[in-house]
Amino acid sequence: MAIISLITDFGLRDEYAGLVKAVILGIDPEAVLVDISHAVDAQDIPQAAFMLEASYRYFPPDTIHLVVVDPGVGTPRALLYVEADGHRFLAPDNGVLSLLLDPPRVTAVRRLERPIACGSGASATFHGRDILAPCAAHLSQGMDAREIGPELAPSRLTFLAGLRAGRLPDGSIAGRVVHIDRFGNLITNIAAELLPSRAALAGGPPVAIRVAGQGISGLGRTYADERVGRPIALVGSRGYLEIAVNGGSAQHHFGARKGDAVDVRLAG
Amino acid sequence: MAIISLITDFGLRDEYAGLVKAVILGIDPEAVLVDISHAVDAQDIPQAAFMLEASYRYFPPDTIHLVVVDPGVGTPRALLYVEADGHRFLAPDNGVLSLLLDPPRVTAVRRLERPIACGSGASATFHGRDILAPCAAHLSQGMDAREIGPELAPSRLTFLAGLRAGRLPDGSIAGRVVHIDRFGNLITNIAAELLPSRAALAGGPPVAIRVAGQGISGLGRTYADERVGRPIALVGSRGYLEIAVNGGSAQHHFGARKGDAVDVRLAG
Amino acid sequence: MAIISLITDFGLRDEYAGLVKAVILGIDPEAVLVDISHAVDAQDIPQAAFMLEASYRYFPPDTIHLVVVDPGVGTPRALLYVEADGHRFLAPDNGVLSLLLDPPRVTAVRRLERPIACGSGASATFHGRDILAPCAAHLSQGMDAREIGPELAPSRLTFLAGLRAGRLPDGSIAGRVVHIDRFGNLITNIAAELLPSRAALAGGPPVAIRVAGQGISGLGRTYADERVGRPIALVGSRGYLEIAVNGGSAQHHFGARKGDAVDVRLAG
Repeated sequence: MAIISLITDFGLRDEYAGLVKAVILGIDPEAVLVDISHAVDAQDIPQAAFMLEASYRYFPPDTIHLVVVDPGVGTPRALLYVEADGHRFLAPDNGVLSLLLDPPRVTAVRRLERPIACGSGASATFHGRDILAPCAAHLSQGMDAREIGPELAPSRLTFLAGLRAGRLPDGSIAGRVVHIDRFGNLITNIAAELLPSRAALAGGPPVAIRVAGQGISGLGRTYADERVGRPIALVGSRGYLEIAVNGGSAQHHFGARKGDAVDVRLAG
Repeated sequence: MAIISLITDFGLRDEYAGLVKAVILGIDPEAVLVDISHAVDAQDIPQAAFMLEASYRYFPPDTIHLVVVDPGVGTPRALLYVEADGHRFLAPDNGVLSLLLDPPRVTAVRRLERPIACGSGASATFHGRDILAPCAAHLSQGMDAREIGPELAPSRLTFLAGLRAGRLPDGSIAGRVVHIDRFGNLITNIAAELLPSRAALAGGPPVAIRVAGQGISGLGRTYADERVGRPIALVGSRGYLEIAVNGGSAQHHFGARKGDAVDVRLAG
Repeated sequence: MAIISLITDFGLRDEYAGLVKAVILGIDPEAVLVDISHAVDAQDIPQAAFMLEASYRYFPPDTIHLVVVDPGVGTPRALLYVEADGHRFLAPDNGVLSLLLDPPRVTAVRRLERPIACGSGASATFHGRDILAPCAAHLSQGMDAREIGPELAPSRLTFLAGLRAGRLPDGSIAGRVVHIDRFGNLITNIAAELLPSRAALAGGPPVAIRVAGQGISGLGRTYADERVGRPIALVGSRGYLEIAVNGGSAQHHFGARKGDAVDVRLAG
């Protein structure tokens, strides 16, 4: 019995996510299905990539992660089976798995090709239901990955460079908001590893953060480290820099939007 | 162990869908529950009818489909058990099963009456939780359908005529938008069978489609058959004519609304 | 095998609810997870309290109810394990369990403290994933509640007084709208037990209800007891007074908002 997780941009108004589950359960009635989210912004591949990275490691090893954000459905873009970090991933070859390639964690890649493993009679517009779902279900039932299709070199996968923020020559960090959550927290692409450690901060100059033209000084540990209604920067539950407002919404406070620049520098 | 699918207009903000599941699992802890959608527009029976038709065949035979779009809750409208096309359906007698009657696929109909099978002490406002959920759970556990209540003739069911578009005497098709999906695709009630085949289109005059006062020429196969930002008509994953915009939203492009007319004619 | 229910304010756009489930299934792969709602208004503790009370009794005894509406995450507020009315509850000590204390139904309370039972390496911002989820999973697997942490007296729990409406000295009832559901029904904090019985109403003076400055006379039994488009007051599926519009939205009809006053008095 395997767990199959789902990240899609199908939304929850339509029948699309339900049909992916119907097809899986029709093949493997024992499969355990877990929705991570069906509300990725339509066709937003980077947003899905960060959500997948924030999520997969909380599932048991060998979980099958189905990622269906697929603006190219019906074009010749490949569908992929990838093994990385002890987990299995099924997704279109459009860069949504880029964060698994940086640093490289991929141990096997195959291209979905065999109809016996991956469905037949596929529609031109819904490969999640017609190809990825049957493939996930057969894998969950123990099908050998070699049944899926031929191996590919990881270097052949579509790779989106620069998803994570990097450090500039002057030591500052140029990032951006990649997701705004339900609480209005601004979640950035600035990994905690880029930030000075708490120990370094305790003794040294404060960190200065700019978002939407406004500044925040210092890094907190939890939302309540600031007064109610005041903005705070902290390392969020994803392990990335996050801008929040204690008891409020940073989105409204800053008038921020997905994609906004977030800059970090050591003051003084 | 049976699968029980759910289509409702309960939304996901309230506890209503969760309570239907709680009652089912309290009776049959092994039941496997699959949400198709809880976001049918409030009390929109035709929209639910098309969603059910688009969905049920992807589930394994004998699946129990619970459809709770029930503006008449608390009135004397019947609650129904219907067997059709190898599947089982529980729904109010308000026309939501009309597409199973056209063409006729129904093999058995019963009216829910026996409290032992279908719950007792029902509230006046939530028959999904108090009657349909226990009935689904007992069926899932193997209860004989005869325990539910007396047989009805299929001809006695409430039938909504004209849900699907038909062909006019001049050969054109007068349809309408019955659902707008998360991507802004306009999903019509024009079944693929009404449209000229791809073979016929290859040699003959183009199909001319009008929606919201604007025209689209020809039928594509997949969203990417048009340039990004351009509208395209195609047979969607439901098997019905769909108007889309590659990489965009047909809803915004056309300023379209649910209910808008969609006309199809052979040009020239 | 236990059922674990979930009430949170995580929403469904983000990965938060999915990660709680991932952690639970990683520890207890047999756990059955039921979403009650993830759409509690952000940090609205009273709304969650009423939703929990409306829901828990429909689950089988011993169900574990996980309630994560937690504005104080990261502060020293306690996390609680509570046994009440034959069910088990895990929640922050912020008053979200107040309706279980009034009238008192609590039979055991413990404070989550033991890392072996409740996770270790917790983040500062996501105790639902890092502490409550592992604790629920270990309980579901049969862990003795004594492993969780030390006992507390129920009298030490944070209690929000006045959540339910009471009767005033003049016999009238001063309540408020605590939830507006998907259909625009206004759900109040006025329990059915406060209202005159149907028998009393049959012979006596009518009940007069005021909401948003407008009056409704009498209590119906079901939405259809009024003409389409007309407001009606009734005891809803939660067992509380509810204001509805047959075939429409009371929210729009009255221009009502959560928190609006609802007054009930016996006329004449």
